[in-house]
Amino acid sequence: MASLQHRPRLPLGSVVRHVSNPVSLTLHHIHTPNRSFSLAKSKNNGTRKERVVILGSGWAGYGFARTLDPAKYERVVISPRSYFVFTPLLASTSVGTLEFRSILEPVRRLKGNVGFFQGWADDIDFDRKMIRVETNAAEEAASKTIVPPPSPSPSETPGLEKETTMEIAATTKKPKGDLINIPYDKLVIACGAYSQTFGIEGVREHAHFLRDIGDARRIRLRVLSLFEQCSYPRGSDHLSDDDKRALLHFAIVGGGPTGIEFAAELHDLIHEDLAPLYPDLIPLVSITVYDVAPKVLPMFDQALAQYAMDTFARQNISVKTEHHLQRLRLADGEFGRRHGALKIKIKEYGDQEVGAGLVVWSTGLMANPLIAKLTAKRLAADGAAAAANNPLSSSGNSDNAASPPRHLARDARTGGLVTDAHLRARTLDEAGGNPGVLDDVYVIGDCAVMENEPSLPKTAQVASQQAVHLAKMLNKGGAAAVADRPFRFRNWGTLTYLGSWKAIHQSQADELRGWVAWVIWRGAYLTKSMSVRNKILVPFYWMVSWLFGRGISRF
Amino acid sequence: MASLQHRPRLPLGSVVRHVSNPVSLTLHHIHTPNRSFSLAKSKNNGTRKERVVILGSGWAGYGFARTLDPAKYERVVISPRSYFVFTPLLASTSVGTLEFRSILEPVRRLKGNVGFFQGWADDIDFDRKMIRVETNAAEEAASKTIVPPPSPSPSETPGLEKETTMEIAATTKKPKGDLINIPYDKLVIACGAYSQTFGIEGVREHAHFLRDIGDARRIRLRVLSLFEQCSYPRGSDHLSDDDKRALLHFAIVGGGPTGIEFAAELHDLIHEDLAPLYPDLIPLVSITVYDVAPKVLPMFDQALAQYAMDTFARQNISVKTEHHLQRLRLADGEFGRRHGALKIKIKEYGDQEVGAGLVVWSTGLMANPLIAKLTAKRLAADGAAAAANNPLSSSGNSDNAASPPRHLARDARTGGLVTDAHLRARTLDEAGGNPGVLDDVYVIGDCAVMENEPSLPKTAQVASQQAVHLAKMLNKGGAAAVADRPFRFRNWGTLTYLGSWKAIHQSQADELRGWVAWVIWRGAYLTKSMSVRNKILVPFYWMVSWLFGRGISRF
Repeated sequence: MASLQHRPRLPLGSVVRHVSNPVSLTLHHIHTPNRSFSLAKSKNNGTRKERVVILGSGWAGYGFARTLDPAKYERVVISPRSYFVFTPLLASTSVGTLEFRSILEPVRRLKGNVGFFQGWADDIDFDRKMIRVETNAAEEAASKTIVPPPSPSPSETPGLEKETTMEIAATTKKPKGDLINIPYDKLVIACGAYSQTFGIEGVREHAHFLRDIGDARRIRLRVLSLFEQCSYPRGSDHLSDDDKRALLHFAIVGGGPTGIEFAAELHDLIHEDLAPLYPDLIPLVSITVYDVAPKVLPMFDQALAQYAMDTFARQNISVKTEHHLQRLRLADGEFGRRHGALKIKIKEYGDQEVGAGLVVWSTGLMANPLIAKLTAKRLAADGAAAAANNPLSSSGNSDNAASPPRHLARDARTGGLVTDAHLRARTLDEAGGNPGVLDDVYVIGDCAVMENEPSLPKTAQVASQQAVHLAKMLNKGGAAAVADRPFRFRNWGTLTYLGSWKAIHQSQADELRGWVAWVIWRGAYLTKSMSVRNKILVPFYWMVSWLFGRGISRF
Repeated sequence: MASLQHRPRLPLGSVVRHVSNPVSLTLHHIHTPNRSFSLAKSKNNGTRKERVVILGSGWAGYGFARTLDPAKYERVVISPRSYFVFTPLLASTSVGTLEFRSILEPVRRLKGNVGFFQGWADDIDFDRKMIRVETNAAEEAASKTIVPPPSPSPSETPGLEKETTMEIAATTKKPKGDLINIPYDKLVIACGAYSQTFGIEGVREHAHFLRDIGDARRIRLRVLSLFEQCSYPRGSDHLSDDDKRALLHFAIVGGGPTGIEFAAELHDLIHEDLAPLYPDLIPLVSITVYDVAPKVLPMFDQALAQYAMDTFARQNISVKTEHHLQRLRLADGEFGRRHGALKIKIKEYGDQEVGAGLVVWSTGLMANPLIAKLTAKRLAADGAAAAANNPLSSSGNSDNAASPPRHLARDARTGGLVTDAHLRARTLDEAGGNPGVLDDVYVIGDCAVMENEPSLPKTAQVASQQAVHLAKMLNKGGAAAVADRPFRFRNWGTLTYLGSWKAIHQSQADELRGWVAWVIWRGAYLTKSMSVRNKILVPFYWMVSWLFGRGISRF
């Protein structure tokens, strides 16, 4: 509880350090505002600490940065988000049960010195150990899920050539932010994955995602706004009951835990909090979960999944399995323009479109476009080839200049970066053979595919365990310790909230359903990687919402 | 503590009422979702309750709606905001000490039935007792201060002519929202005032206001973003120290309590919370308060104002009195476009512009454009003239059809609506003589100017007292009770926070300074018109912020 101590209050003038002059781009002099080189030097017998740069601030990146010992390494996080989102509670914030900030952990508030640069890794020069970052610190930077447009063919996004000097040149894609170069000693790639839209028309433009805090906020504003819009008396563009029924249809695409939990939380919001305020509208409300699979919640066994379906049926939440969404568009005329009414085309319904006021998209994940860029890149012979010659060695010999060119291995099925059992980036030669590892480059979380366990799910649990394992190994003995012990996933089980104070829990040892599981669902989150601040705030808000109802202020 | 009881949880299907068919626009059948006419009839011996429509949800409108007895009147609130903002704590939310929603009270959560329509009163037909409302329930409707463009001449905004049937016709200004008509029995105009920009170039576009919760959020995002932007190492458009000094200059225009408190809270945020995270940037930070007057905090006596100045001087907050801002613009090139850097032209500095990253505008208020529209309107002879014949009567006789036309009285100096000592809307004849009152129309808060006390300040205190007085009189005995007792303002004193746990307090009885005043400053807010929910949340956040620092997550 060290963080409970009273924070010092700094009078003006107590900070006398001045920003140094613009520095050159060499490894040792890069400007990192939160770090004192002299301190590091004195602690380490005159030698500086190794800099570990972490790409991403999700379960993998933040979890790693949180576990890595700042006394042994200099930590620098690069991420478009300045905070970590406790994603399992995202649905709760989207309906106002929890306050948005109570599930956020600012990266800069990590204990011990930590460097942070907000932006996207635009490219990586593995040979020079340098990351090019497109900065973005605009007011609302990256608080919402961004889905990239259909990607160009690989030939249009070549990697940096060996000769490229990391200078900023005019490229075809003009970056919106400034470009900066950040050198590293060790690199942890934890940049996650993007939402998969399967190229379905209109999803990028009209669907809401639920992966970042800004998404939760926008969903919340939309739900409350729809009720307000349907509550007006007759006017010049009066909404008929059918119009209102369409606007108050909440469609969720994807029957995984995220979609199911959002449907459950939305049901609670509507029937516990909005029903007393808009009683006339409640009979017009409907919630539907669509999935292409024959069964939702595939990670639960049949009995628990059936329990979930029964619970939903009692709550009048429709679950439509084996339904294929084909297009999403705005409704015609003022109904679409002014009210944002949507039309969903579903294969099974032919030309009969379904109306909706909100479509929440929570299907699969697709690879981060950065991965394609990195794997298309030819690695310099003098760096990676050494590892190729010694596949089990993590500290390669860089004298062998005659080796053939190599590249990072990409998983054909998911597009992720392949790692060995130690979470080290796998390299291959031009023919796809002669496997090696890239020194000092690790990959964890949703963007990693372990070659020995390629079907590990892309979940917070996996990312979190990988992050902690890797950081602990590095704390213990650097690259040698990483090479010494492979990562093993331990399944802690899965919990999903079903609404009305019921949940289901499944693990290898047991399975639970109903309110007991609900108690575990809540309790589990209080022990997870949250700061003391949020461990206090979250149960406090649960109490406040229980006593006074969820927050319904819309702003 | 009635609201502490556990709220009922409504299962789906428990609400069996259906929305009635589209209804005609007569007084008795207007669709109000939250209200049961049959209930009202039975309680009132078969007669319906009088409908009191309230325009606005600020200190005046919300305070009135909160006090008016729902057993005696049907309450309908029309406001662009679906919530009341506890404005004295707005500056605290803008720096993250308090959570945004902890200072909001949703109108729909008022105890007892309350009708609510989100939108702006576009026009009022006093003869037919009908309000035309431009609806706006879009996702982020009205969560920020909107400053109207320079108003057209009065001839371009004619009132509804006597012959106009309140039908929706194509007008020159096309409304963005749907138009609906809401009839009333009694009307309380509490639509407030707009921010005064004095027509200074660039203020509308580039300054931040601090009057609504969305303003506080945008200021917060801007402040945190500026620190992040200045923390990058050298890049293609590297910021020099002078650039950073400009971006980290926070300018506040207006030395009233709002401006002073914001400067104080911003100082606390920077020096208590951001200094440990961005130590290199702190020497580049500056805060300046500009005012045209020779002295800030004009409502405090010289000694307390001097104490405030001394406190600010110790905190290195500059106060520049007798400075006249003449123009605000974006800086040239990428510095302005990408970083939003501003240039302030100040008369006293000639052509030497001052750089700033944020300009917060908190000078005076100007009349709501609706007032000009209403006072330009000719009132029908059969309604208002009766009151004119009996200036002291609130229930006029409407038989006299021969009276000359009349209009609402407008205060020449401030543009507000003139009221008598009983808060009733004052009417005059064409020549500006023969004063009367308009039956069933009351005006309170910032848009009201009492003819007997024209210099009452436009403060929350005045608005709140007027609201409570009027509602209590109506509860007691309707219009007759209002006519019976005039409103009397009681000065409760003024409190202003100065930063570093110091405040000043002045009332007729005493004056206080320092931390004692700070304790009162905090305590006072806990007893004011907040819900139990927020009376718990606000001190809870004070504790959390004190223990763990302010929230710095930016999203």
